[in-house]
Amino acid sequence: MIDQLIAKIKKTEAPIVVGLDPMMKFVPEHIRQMAFAEYGETLEGAAEAIWQYNKEIVDHIYDIVPAVKPQIAMYEQFGILGLLAFKKTVDYCKQKGLIVIGDIKRGDIGSTSEAYAVGHLGKVQVGSKAFYGFDEDFATVNPYLGSDGVKPFLKVCQEEKKGIFVLVKTSNPSSGELQDRLIADAGNRPLYEVVGEQVNEWAKECMGDSYSYVGAVVGATYPEMGKILREIMPKSYILVPGYGAQGGKGKDLVHFFNEDGLGAIVNSSRGIIAAYQQEKYASYGSEGFGEAARAAVEDMREDIRQAIESR
Amino acid sequence: MIDQLIAKIKKTEAPIVVGLDPMMKFVPEHIRQMAFAEYGETLEGAAEAIWQYNKEIVDHIYDIVPAVKPQIAMYEQFGILGLLAFKKTVDYCKQKGLIVIGDIKRGDIGSTSEAYAVGHLGKVQVGSKAFYGFDEDFATVNPYLGSDGVKPFLKVCQEEKKGIFVLVKTSNPSSGELQDRLIADAGNRPLYEVVGEQVNEWAKECMGDSYSYVGAVVGATYPEMGKILREIMPKSYILVPGYGAQGGKGKDLVHFFNEDGLGAIVNSSRGIIAAYQQEKYASYGSEGFGEAARAAVEDMREDIRQAIESR
Repeated sequence: MIDQLIAKIKKTEAPIVVGLDPMMKFVPEHIRQMAFAEYGETLEGAAEAIWQYNKEIVDHIYDIVPAVKPQIAMYEQFGILGLLAFKKTVDYCKQKGLIVIGDIKRGDIGSTSEAYAVGHLGKVQVGSKAFYGFDEDFATVNPYLGSDGVKPFLKVCQEEKKGIFVLVKTSNPSSGELQDRLIADAGNRPLYEVVGEQVNEWAKECMGDSYSYVGAVVGATYPEMGKILREIMPKSYILVPGYGAQGGKGKDLVHFFNEDGLGAIVNSSRGIIAAYQQEKYASYGSEGFGEAARAAVEDMREDIRQAIESR
Repeated sequence: MIDQLIAKIKKTEAPIVVGLDPMMKFVPEHIRQMAFAEYGETLEGAAEAIWQYNKEIVDHIYDIVPAVKPQIAMYEQFGILGLLAFKKTVDYCKQKGLIVIGDIKRGDIGSTSEAYAVGHLGKVQVGSKAFYGFDEDFATVNPYLGSDGVKPFLKVCQEEKKGIFVLVKTSNPSSGELQDRLIADAGNRPLYEVVGEQVNEWAKECMGDSYSYVGAVVGATYPEMGKILREIMPKSYILVPGYGAQGGKGKDLVHFFNEDGLGAIVNSSRGIIAAYQQEKYASYGSEGFGEAARAAVEDMREDIRQAIESR
């Protein structure tokens, strides 16, 4: 799957993943009203609204980006009905030829981590038969529990030709509270470097053609750390959140890419899916939110291209 | 909710939580056959099997334990239908008067963490109305992303009178890979102590009558670390996994309790729900798995009682 992801990045010339995080405040009024008219102000109505919203976004961007990243929390908050909308979104994106990165940040131990891996990337056994659960192409994984939590994902990835992105240095302001702490038994280097080294070990065992299917999450908001982590994990794709709304800019991104122009895929969520709410794209109106999203993708692609060219 | 949990622990004299982790290999043959006869070897069949299995366990233990802890991964692996069985289990346990600790180990940032908190402990807003999603009483939370990931849970807990258990030192063999690393900028103390101190800060701000509704997860398999963490977080309830199948014994547990005999609740999953598969409880047969579970709870209660008495 990492080879397919890279092929699609080359084809679209867009190392971009669109975050499908459909907060209700992003969903245009007319979509909400249509859904509530049919299902009332219910969980079903909310699920319908986010599904229709996603569908129109996807219809406008599927041919110019390689991948989407639905954030499962935004669906899970609506309970079962929200998760049905998540599954519908995953399936629809795959139908449209997009690679789906499930932003699930799961992490547990042993058989429990295996259950998450199976449910999101693999097949679960039921008697003599086996079924796919959510069936994303990649998943994000939390490393706090150690390799017991990660290895079951690697096993499923090997079987299914899928991949993971391990959280290394997250984009949020407080990520340093644990991730930046200096590790005495690792030469006083920060914890994120230690995690990066672990990721690199796993990555070397899980190679695609030129990159590993074990990647890492490193926030655009920490470009200097990204530079170091890029060197520590040369074979890992870096999934980079934090561009746009969280403050990361094109020029901050260059260190996340390797010399081959590959090695990173940058996420933008609200900057694309809620572009119509920005002054810059206001002329599209809320009815034109899909076209605004497409325009925002094109601008983002140009911003990254220029940044890489001028490095 | 922490006050209710403590009242129930006192009433049952059982600082025990039964882990409802219904792996298919634990589900007795006759339950599986019944479910497959009705729904075939399908995800629906699997979901029915784990629900019927859970129900019979709960019917046999609800009056002698204060709480259950369904591990959501074991349901999520079966996709939407598995999560329906999770929700059914949560609701049924609450009907039977049990406190439900959702073992979800979620953790993200800002609005995303808030979405998890809302979906599992609180109410989600849909237009002018608000709805509960999964509606557990407590949830487990992963701290790797820092306080950005935890504070949204605290807000929802305050509103809903619910609680969380933050992962501090997990019970698995590789938990030390990150959690035991020595932090140079914290006097070369291990990371789990640093996390424990953070938990204590949150806990002090979130007090019930005598204990905080911000608790911690510390594995029974690391009793010496438990002793230190007990002192670092005097007002936090400690949820202790790893008893039984993972190797933790009654005598290992004493350090997790405060002098008042409170402050800890010990989880056992397969040791109770699959007790019928152990030689010790084999006489119950697989048809008697519910009674075997009850007997295992009673033995566990006695084991813990003796350990606390003889300290």
